[in-house]
Amino acid sequence: MTTTRPFRLNETHDPALRSWVVSANPRAAIAASDAVAAQAATVSDFPIQNLPYAIFRRSHTDERFRAGVAIGDQVLDLAPHAVHQALKLDASLAAALTLCREDAALNALMALGPAAWSGLRLALSRGLRAEASHAVQAVLQAHLTPQAEVEYALPARIGDYTDFYTSVHHATNVGRLFRPDNPLLPNYKWVPIGYHGRSSSIGVSGQQFHRPKGQLMAPGADPATTAPTLAPTQRLDIELELGIFIGQGNPLGEPVPLVEAEDHVFGLCLLNDWSARDIQAWEYQPLGPMLSKNFATTISPWIVTLEALAPYRTAFTRPDGDPQPLPYLDSAANREGGAFDIQLEVLIQTSRMRQAGQAAHRIVRTSYRHAYWTLAQLVTHHTVGGCNLQPGDLFGSGTLSGPTLEEAGALLELTRGGKQPLSLPDGEQRTFLHDGDRVTLRGHCEKAGAVRIGFGDCTGTVLPAKG
Amino acid sequence: MTTTRPFRLNETHDPALRSWVVSANPRAAIAASDAVAAQAATVSDFPIQNLPYAIFRRSHTDERFRAGVAIGDQVLDLAPHAVHQALKLDASLAAALTLCREDAALNALMALGPAAWSGLRLALSRGLRAEASHAVQAVLQAHLTPQAEVEYALPARIGDYTDFYTSVHHATNVGRLFRPDNPLLPNYKWVPIGYHGRSSSIGVSGQQFHRPKGQLMAPGADPATTAPTLAPTQRLDIELELGIFIGQGNPLGEPVPLVEAEDHVFGLCLLNDWSARDIQAWEYQPLGPMLSKNFATTISPWIVTLEALAPYRTAFTRPDGDPQPLPYLDSAANREGGAFDIQLEVLIQTSRMRQAGQAAHRIVRTSYRHAYWTLAQLVTHHTVGGCNLQPGDLFGSGTLSGPTLEEAGALLELTRGGKQPLSLPDGEQRTFLHDGDRVTLRGHCEKAGAVRIGFGDCTGTVLPAKG
Repeated sequence: MTTTRPFRLNETHDPALRSWVVSANPRAAIAASDAVAAQAATVSDFPIQNLPYAIFRRSHTDERFRAGVAIGDQVLDLAPHAVHQALKLDASLAAALTLCREDAALNALMALGPAAWSGLRLALSRGLRAEASHAVQAVLQAHLTPQAEVEYALPARIGDYTDFYTSVHHATNVGRLFRPDNPLLPNYKWVPIGYHGRSSSIGVSGQQFHRPKGQLMAPGADPATTAPTLAPTQRLDIELELGIFIGQGNPLGEPVPLVEAEDHVFGLCLLNDWSARDIQAWEYQPLGPMLSKNFATTISPWIVTLEALAPYRTAFTRPDGDPQPLPYLDSAANREGGAFDIQLEVLIQTSRMRQAGQAAHRIVRTSYRHAYWTLAQLVTHHTVGGCNLQPGDLFGSGTLSGPTLEEAGALLELTRGGKQPLSLPDGEQRTFLHDGDRVTLRGHCEKAGAVRIGFGDCTGTVLPAKG
Repeated sequence: MTTTRPFRLNETHDPALRSWVVSANPRAAIAASDAVAAQAATVSDFPIQNLPYAIFRRSHTDERFRAGVAIGDQVLDLAPHAVHQALKLDASLAAALTLCREDAALNALMALGPAAWSGLRLALSRGLRAEASHAVQAVLQAHLTPQAEVEYALPARIGDYTDFYTSVHHATNVGRLFRPDNPLLPNYKWVPIGYHGRSSSIGVSGQQFHRPKGQLMAPGADPATTAPTLAPTQRLDIELELGIFIGQGNPLGEPVPLVEAEDHVFGLCLLNDWSARDIQAWEYQPLGPMLSKNFATTISPWIVTLEALAPYRTAFTRPDGDPQPLPYLDSAANREGGAFDIQLEVLIQTSRMRQAGQAAHRIVRTSYRHAYWTLAQLVTHHTVGGCNLQPGDLFGSGTLSGPTLEEAGALLELTRGGKQPLSLPDGEQRTFLHDGDRVTLRGHCEKAGAVRIGFGDCTGTVLPAKG
């Protein structure tokens, strides 16, 4: 089985497409005479070329959470039978979307596989286009809710969560702080390094969590004579990552070859892997990070499908002199277009800024294209020993630091290990996070000849330690 | 809330109790005149003082899997309404057991908490006692199936799986092989070291798995000039562990204090954490083991409750000169009776032994009492930063090696890093596992004045690598 699906652009990617949901359209597409609409319109993350999925319900209700797709500033409810009929969905898609409502999770849709996902995307694209029939528009219109009036749940029931380490720049920067004489370990350029993370504490954007306590050991202290203390972390950090949701799984004992790997990827979201650096430094040897990471992980509600990202594929190359991946992690398709150019940024808003009405301040811009391993390689490596993946499993990309320290995805790197504070516009400084700090991740893709698509926000807020 | 539940023996622990299910009773309890029964009876792992739970159905049927309790060589089906009535279960227990059948998992029972678990145990003990009324016996008798005629599923829907490292002997033995100059890391005596493991590849006793492939690097080779190879592991190992099933969970952000920790533990099973040592050596830095562990983990079907283990509690002590645990990991109750004396053994049967009809050969005996951290400490440490546990989550104890190398729970230790093969009775030798090897873990508790209780078998078989 050779898969060319994600490489081939189709009618759903046509930059000329416009939606009858006006807020989905680029500003230029709005008639100059429609002054109100023109004023309201900003460049949406969710044009008709995007069509990401979430689990939502109307705020302040006890409605069941169900699947929705974003279009402009609206959510189209994918649960109603009338919507299935208007979109002419086949029985398996309709059944899966019904099950998504029963489960309050997208797992049933994720399990269907790429042909079904493409079919649903095409149906949604046609139903939401300006050219859709008035009858179809009327049905779908009745099931739109403004995003401002909904709340989200986690998009999937996440069985297992694996966090990778795919930025060689992050690995080198952090390695230099933890192991100055040995920053990049010898296995890095061969093994897509990762570790199993904690599923239960993953929350959706808007998550608030208490500053975690843990064992802290003064750097350089002798554990034979000095006891660690249990105290709130003093080095609370962010990690700017992408989340990769597994769609269809693989049976235990059956590795996924690289050429099929992307058939197992449903889509991508933003992911903030909050990290307590002082807890991590003391606990991580020899089995890796645990309490330093498992108190909270925040993801964005919207999953952007791999198909939506097709225009933003880019070549995957290794720096000169670096070894090529082993054959099981190498293919022509992966080299030609296995990477994605997704622009990423981190914004911070302190509680003082919030009280003063100051907008969040951007501290980083970088791109996913700098990753040392593609998402296909992550799937194939994870399964090469026979490990089974299941619909709804989540991968983290690892912190997506770019080549310069200004493009780093963690405060640990941006502040040179906490030594060079960042200055915020209101005069405050930050090495690590303070209580009340709110961190937002954003991501989008943009290039000439294609329509800009975005990921929405991934926001989390630090509450003071308890008791 | 102070919990003394697990320390207090009650009528269910009375060594004099006998069941009307004759196979559950010690041999001596069978009248000498009943020659047939005396001959059939062996010492059962499942006397009426044990009462462990599993998820089962009759073999070669498409029945739903449901909850059962072991009594002698039988399983009592806990799903039927008639059984609930005969045992006079309250509505919440009856509803939970019904849900266990819908879910094919014990999670609903696990979520109820210790008062409900004790209530069910007491009801089962009374209903299965020799003194139970004929009417009750008749109902229960109709819902017994011989264990020889059932098959098991995983006892729970396992959300997250965490594997600890609680044997200081194992940590020292393995550390010596991986880091000869620095065997036991400085954090070991302070931090209950653990890592997040893979849930999806956990299987129930009887599991067979293909020898995993992975990246192997020749020891001492220079990664700048030598490429690793993708090949089947040559150092496939076992790890003798106990599995600890979480019962009721804790909300995110709310640590579980040590004094309440055991209220969150439903019970224990046997766990074999199959490990590929050559893959592990190459991949584990800096984020811990991943592919070397995630191809398969095997657990026994029966969960022995903490209450059943109460007679086998023992003092938890640190060697002279070792630091006492930090206050959040220390309590009088934990010191007095936080450890459990569970006898453990590993048996191996090669395919040649199987073909020759030779029984499995015991290669190790040890005990859980040697663990450096109690299970209560594991719960409290895991949650001290706010991480939430959920019903059905699983902890592995880590390899339970005893103080001498002959009591080690992994071949890596038993064979001194693969240098001193073990001799098997038929003349074969083993450093690491060969294809066709079948490994069985067993566990039991036994002491004067109490009735022996056991865990049943945890068996897994190595199949050749695929393709």
